[in-house]
Amino acid sequence: MNTDVVPVAVGDIAGWDHEADVVIAGYGVAGASAAVEAARGGADVLVLERTGSWGGAAAMAGGFIYLGGGTALQTACGFDDSVEDMAAFLNVAMGPGADSERIADYCEHSVAHFDWLVGCGVPFKAEFFGEPGWEPMGDQGLMFSGGENSFPFNTVARPAPRGHVPQMSGKKQGEASAGYMLMKPLVETATAAGTRALYDVRVQRLVVDTGGRVVGLTARRFGNPVAIRARRGVVLATGSFAYNDSMVAQYAPRIAGRPAASIEQHDGRAIRMAQALGADLAHMDATEVAIFADPQQLVRGVLVNARGQRYVPEDTYPGRIGQLTLYHQDNTAYLIIDGEAHEEAMSSPTPQLMFRPPTWVADTVAELEEAIGLPPGSLQHTVEAYNDGATRGEDPLLHKKPQWLRPIGAPLGAIDLRESTGGFTLGGLATTLDAEVLHVSGEPIPGLYAAGRSTAGLAAWGYASGISLGDGSFYGRRAGAAAARG
Amino acid sequence: MNTDVVPVAVGDIAGWDHEADVVIAGYGVAGASAAVEAARGGADVLVLERTGSWGGAAAMAGGFIYLGGGTALQTACGFDDSVEDMAAFLNVAMGPGADSERIADYCEHSVAHFDWLVGCGVPFKAEFFGEPGWEPMGDQGLMFSGGENSFPFNTVARPAPRGHVPQMSGKKQGEASAGYMLMKPLVETATAAGTRALYDVRVQRLVVDTGGRVVGLTARRFGNPVAIRARRGVVLATGSFAYNDSMVAQYAPRIAGRPAASIEQHDGRAIRMAQALGADLAHMDATEVAIFADPQQLVRGVLVNARGQRYVPEDTYPGRIGQLTLYHQDNTAYLIIDGEAHEEAMSSPTPQLMFRPPTWVADTVAELEEAIGLPPGSLQHTVEAYNDGATRGEDPLLHKKPQWLRPIGAPLGAIDLRESTGGFTLGGLATTLDAEVLHVSGEPIPGLYAAGRSTAGLAAWGYASGISLGDGSFYGRRAGAAAARG
Repeated sequence: MNTDVVPVAVGDIAGWDHEADVVIAGYGVAGASAAVEAARGGADVLVLERTGSWGGAAAMAGGFIYLGGGTALQTACGFDDSVEDMAAFLNVAMGPGADSERIADYCEHSVAHFDWLVGCGVPFKAEFFGEPGWEPMGDQGLMFSGGENSFPFNTVARPAPRGHVPQMSGKKQGEASAGYMLMKPLVETATAAGTRALYDVRVQRLVVDTGGRVVGLTARRFGNPVAIRARRGVVLATGSFAYNDSMVAQYAPRIAGRPAASIEQHDGRAIRMAQALGADLAHMDATEVAIFADPQQLVRGVLVNARGQRYVPEDTYPGRIGQLTLYHQDNTAYLIIDGEAHEEAMSSPTPQLMFRPPTWVADTVAELEEAIGLPPGSLQHTVEAYNDGATRGEDPLLHKKPQWLRPIGAPLGAIDLRESTGGFTLGGLATTLDAEVLHVSGEPIPGLYAAGRSTAGLAAWGYASGISLGDGSFYGRRAGAAAARG
Repeated sequence: MNTDVVPVAVGDIAGWDHEADVVIAGYGVAGASAAVEAARGGADVLVLERTGSWGGAAAMAGGFIYLGGGTALQTACGFDDSVEDMAAFLNVAMGPGADSERIADYCEHSVAHFDWLVGCGVPFKAEFFGEPGWEPMGDQGLMFSGGENSFPFNTVARPAPRGHVPQMSGKKQGEASAGYMLMKPLVETATAAGTRALYDVRVQRLVVDTGGRVVGLTARRFGNPVAIRARRGVVLATGSFAYNDSMVAQYAPRIAGRPAASIEQHDGRAIRMAQALGADLAHMDATEVAIFADPQQLVRGVLVNARGQRYVPEDTYPGRIGQLTLYHQDNTAYLIIDGEAHEEAMSSPTPQLMFRPPTWVADTVAELEEAIGLPPGSLQHTVEAYNDGATRGEDPLLHKKPQWLRPIGAPLGAIDLRESTGGFTLGGLATTLDAEVLHVSGEPIPGLYAAGRSTAGLAAWGYASGISLGDGSFYGRRAGAAAARG
């Protein structure tokens, strides 16, 4: 048997190379949050990081942290929110299969979690960004990031923006680095609290005692084997399995070959190490899906599938458009947009990072339909019905907001959005609300904790930007605190 | 820790209550097929069955076995088929994520597998059943069971019927018992080859030796613990996890609360027992989905979603309609059918087990649209476009076969097919083509084999009737043969 991830009996460890009360694998957002709380809990903390420095996927992310229920930032920006509205939204938007207990837990403590981040030195600018987009153009701190104010979610709960973005001064177009401004203060806080870090360490196997308790792990550093003892607990925080091709093929095949917003270190190893110990999994098929299109174009157009039918309100969270396109429409979509709307999108006040020119242009809808190769009459009907409603300021089919409704005229074009999606995996280890890793028996595995995208978090099937940095930091804290208690 | 499914060290076994070379858990189709081959391979075989007799879900099933490539039955019924066409179909229809190596393996040996079944005494009547339906009306032996002759699959491979059904003499309407005529001869063959069976045994935990090899299992019988030694190997064949609510919530939430065509014993225990040993899984979110509607009605109507749009050719495999409805259309569908088509379906030559009266009736499409509550104009356009094509014998949108195209007239009605699906889980243990259970390390777990719906088989996301009895019997044989070799 290939013993790569098979647990090691403690009796087989010749000697420990390093030791600490709490050993954390991975120095991204979950690892850093765990380190802060474990150190504050009085533990001697050692973080093992595979690369040469802290950061993980978080430091390269747009930086959204999904929080609400009336955070100081929401209030400062003039938005009301409640724990109930936030939970009602998440229970629908993160489903089907969303864990309502976890959602309730997260929402209840969301305001306090925002304050904790601020207390760690994470900066937020009290300014709301209201343009369509994947993220704020500048250093604004708050934005709708899950389609809360679009159909159908605006019928489920009172909408409030919950995408909280750390302030990155002097941010330039194309720099998706607000995540750095989340990570830097967290790591500084962890370090100030006494956390030690060891870089270039690739974790390999968990070490268990005769009672089945996790008491350390083995790793490789510059090719050499090292053994690290964890006197109180091990926290796994090494991220998703988006870059493990065989796991993706087995568990989330629709996302195969299209990883995005992830890093190559996300190879699922922590999941494998814990599975080898009998750990349970959840929602392994769930993925975040981006569609590579500019929301300023999306909201001004009409999105149709291979049958020329509309299927999603174009003004919702673009990640939702991505998910519905990849999973429900066989990764096929065309954005129909007229010349005037195209010009307007081009001259809109936000960056056009994903701006795409029309693939086909035509003078009539019939010509465009034929050029794309849609079933005869299909697009003509769709545009006619859309225009008919738009003249009345209504979208009876999909309830796009009136502000974006305008009849589509000529000349017009279509942007080919086939195979234009990518994303990362959301499934992983099943954990308790205290971030204990669950065995398939239903009981926690003693000494083993996990958080971040190596675990199944808030999102079962559905997503909002900020969910991963949100539950990663939130349950990272829980993992660190629980491990420190031992 | 709840030790229910945690592996037992052989040193902790006080004594063996039973022993055999090959111990098989579950006496359904996979277990029976494993027993035949293990016994023929010279092994002393013991089958442990949880209920009071053999049969499992198979004995209650419609009995389809998905086979092709030119079986004797296909030939006798006048159909040509090839291994290549069968594989081409399955690679598309069982995907995305379908395992092309497994499909190639299955198709290559499919003709021989049919002959093996016949050799075991399974009877097949050389008569083709060509009416729309979930299964043959009488004792016919062959039927299209996966949409092979419908769009889009009829453009992927030369269509051939591959649903092979054992002959059940005197079968009456409502008796889904051709599966019994598969199981009875298999069990008789296994018994004649020397297989022993022990009933009322609930398997609990796997027993492993110090080298990590599976050498037996523990169980409960009438409340008492028993230990059963397996000198050469253990075969897990206890079926799906469709009736394990927490596993369904974690892995396949869309099917939660709607199990069908399964049995309550399908609690996923074998999957849990192997997971506790570090076994890997695959395609846990995949499910078979039936839609509770009569295909004689479906083919004569127009199926629309909540937006009044068509989304699937109504003459395809009804299980495909079920999957697309549950997963892509939020479990919402309405079948639009006119009075004449309704009468025709009622008087069709096949049983009307799932026949449903219209939920709404109207004199015009506009009235029907309003009665259902569809977006204004949506259904009117759909029916208009459908009728326009139908008068020309064409369905440019979805390519329903011309034989079923006829303009929809008045009076007409709609059958409410919301929340009208159900099914069973298709994911499970990851195995080699020799039915060895794979550890997450990528290597087989010594001494442990599995087949049937406790494993991930041919279907990743997609289905055809007969796939489960097909891969269950096929890889059940492989499991028995491999375990007998030890």
